[in-house]
Amino acid sequence: MRNTKYEMPNTHVAIIATGSELMRGRSVDTHLGFFARRLETIGLEVGWHSTCGDDLDRIVGEIKLAAARADVVILSGGLGPTQDDLTRDAAAEAFHRPLVFHAAAWRAIRTRFRRFRIRMAAINRLQAFAPRGARLLPNPNGSAPGFALVADGVRFFALPGPPREMMPMFDRHVLTRLPRGRPLALWEAHTVGLPEGTVDEIVRPIVARHRDASYGTTVSHGTVNITVKNGARAGRAIAKALGDRLFMRPLAEEVAARLLKRRATVAIAESCTGGLIAHKLTQVAGVSAVLLEAVVAYSNASKVARLGVPAALIGRHGAVSEEVARAMAEGAARTSGASMGVATTGIAGPTGGSKAKPVGLVWHAVAYRGRTSVERRVFPGERAHVKERSANLALDMMRRILNSE
Amino acid sequence: MRNTKYEMPNTHVAIIATGSELMRGRSVDTHLGFFARRLETIGLEVGWHSTCGDDLDRIVGEIKLAAARADVVILSGGLGPTQDDLTRDAAAEAFHRPLVFHAAAWRAIRTRFRRFRIRMAAINRLQAFAPRGARLLPNPNGSAPGFALVADGVRFFALPGPPREMMPMFDRHVLTRLPRGRPLALWEAHTVGLPEGTVDEIVRPIVARHRDASYGTTVSHGTVNITVKNGARAGRAIAKALGDRLFMRPLAEEVAARLLKRRATVAIAESCTGGLIAHKLTQVAGVSAVLLEAVVAYSNASKVARLGVPAALIGRHGAVSEEVARAMAEGAARTSGASMGVATTGIAGPTGGSKAKPVGLVWHAVAYRGRTSVERRVFPGERAHVKERSANLALDMMRRILNSE
Repeated sequence: MRNTKYEMPNTHVAIIATGSELMRGRSVDTHLGFFARRLETIGLEVGWHSTCGDDLDRIVGEIKLAAARADVVILSGGLGPTQDDLTRDAAAEAFHRPLVFHAAAWRAIRTRFRRFRIRMAAINRLQAFAPRGARLLPNPNGSAPGFALVADGVRFFALPGPPREMMPMFDRHVLTRLPRGRPLALWEAHTVGLPEGTVDEIVRPIVARHRDASYGTTVSHGTVNITVKNGARAGRAIAKALGDRLFMRPLAEEVAARLLKRRATVAIAESCTGGLIAHKLTQVAGVSAVLLEAVVAYSNASKVARLGVPAALIGRHGAVSEEVARAMAEGAARTSGASMGVATTGIAGPTGGSKAKPVGLVWHAVAYRGRTSVERRVFPGERAHVKERSANLALDMMRRILNSE
Repeated sequence: MRNTKYEMPNTHVAIIATGSELMRGRSVDTHLGFFARRLETIGLEVGWHSTCGDDLDRIVGEIKLAAARADVVILSGGLGPTQDDLTRDAAAEAFHRPLVFHAAAWRAIRTRFRRFRIRMAAINRLQAFAPRGARLLPNPNGSAPGFALVADGVRFFALPGPPREMMPMFDRHVLTRLPRGRPLALWEAHTVGLPEGTVDEIVRPIVARHRDASYGTTVSHGTVNITVKNGARAGRAIAKALGDRLFMRPLAEEVAARLLKRRATVAIAESCTGGLIAHKLTQVAGVSAVLLEAVVAYSNASKVARLGVPAALIGRHGAVSEEVARAMAEGAARTSGASMGVATTGIAGPTGGSKAKPVGLVWHAVAYRGRTSVERRVFPGERAHVKERSANLALDMMRRILNSE
């Protein structure tokens, strides 16, 4: 079926990520996501995105291609001082502008190095060059200035690669200078543990009843994300249909907010998830008000000593069992004084499985207000995937239990 | 300076990632890294990479562009059953081949749903279509088969989006069918905590002395990664120059291997890193032999009760202090019986900082064999970045201390 849902705004944006580390799989590009979310706030979408190694001809080719199809071209990376930093040269060649030296930028670079008492390498002088007609963009968090150039009817922006340098420069010097599109009116929600096809069967007929609305779903580690465009009304109907399975914020934020709202505190006892539940929760600023502690009880001795799990219980049922999961969750709450205890115990793999207890088997338990809920799952896939799905399920159990009060 | 280091092999590969969730920043593409690393094993490099939303015309355009410049085109995503899954239609249009129905694939899809006792949605039948002349590629981990098509002199492969479906299919049906290039002979190493420019000043003159060798560096959360092409001899000289700052494996793997080699065990006490050190270590299979436990002691009460940090010490110096970091690391080792104790305490932000103790300040401590080492850092950037840099520094301290024995 043809999907014509996303009308493009009038301004077309192309993104180019440069770096051989991206093309060789030594690094993952997270800039596209940043650009997309920021552009969305002014009603723009990314039309094209490409990644390119540190090769002059390839970068020149990508800039020319992007300039031919977009009004705005944003390139990141390649502004450092070393021999594989080729953005200045590539832009100069693509737009037929010679490189010129900016004395003020050179002074700013030298001042920066003096301020941090770092000895400057001579090659850093290269960073003060930019194509003729470009405006330099100051970089408060690094030595590489960016630059903006209007050429051949295209607005071209070059930004450094490191996210903490690029992001504030984008917000300050790029986002403020772009034309605004029509706001996108996206309705977004998430659900954990249902197959994507099942979610689709619920969402499709609802969206079909609402003119102009259209939708997409994605899956990540057991979480199905639903995005509906022009779908505020359809969204309300979907929320009704999925009920307590649905939530609107990122999972860890949702759980932290619900804990705060209930004035509940939580202690976590992780075995196979190895700290991932705690890591996800502590990504949320302010979670210290509700998270008392987490114990990654990787050894049986730790389960006994830290959480008060009876050694005999482990002997009888094994560390990966419903009984031990319950005892861990209850022990986490009891020994910490938290109102909620959460536990996982399982076999993340790749070894350690048996016929009765295969790799991927995880028991999850949440103890809260005198009641302990348990869920058993066998997750497919490799170690990292099992950890992710199990941590997400544990967080979703917390969410549902806090929700049902 | 022009960098002509990477001669291309004879086979040119283009990768296309599809999915509006990528273009809207709701998901991060990790496929490029996977493809690059796997292709490297047979001496091939990724020449072009582009990302594309779920829009038929855009996908057709990207396929045509890739087919015009590459010999092998690999596309991932868009093979699901829903309305935004457009890969089958796009390939049919780009290569001028009508879609044909594959009865055997349809049987396999139905069998799969029966086996997992999941009710099948009627739309799943769409997944049994492929462009005329295509060979279907079975998907053992999902309902969407992939397909391979030779058209216009190009080998085109369509694979599903979810990594755990795509990856085994790539290994089995794509990698085995590609021509082999010349092995790339990459020498790779890592170092934590040195500025990239400093690393570059050490590496550049060494590589310059070795004909044919060339290099690149990247930074990620305080880790500088060095890649030298045709650089086995240059690599040995770099290793000598950087000494104990240098290591060859991913950091958590390196630490786990050194713990195993020393027959050491470790217990972790995390405050501001919130479980991230434990999460990173438990990504390594087999780490249960050396990791006894981790305590995420987020509250002061937890630091006292779990780790035996004297309450008076916290009262006198504050939870974020050298004294408390020491006491946490020593307490983690003592209370668990581990031979090594590791601790972090700091202010991840965005709030909670003061003039004397700014956001980003972290104390790191490692207690081992009667001696406790401490390092203080003030990391720039946001909460997630502070957690990452701090966890990496703590792991690197463990590595250096185990190395110096």
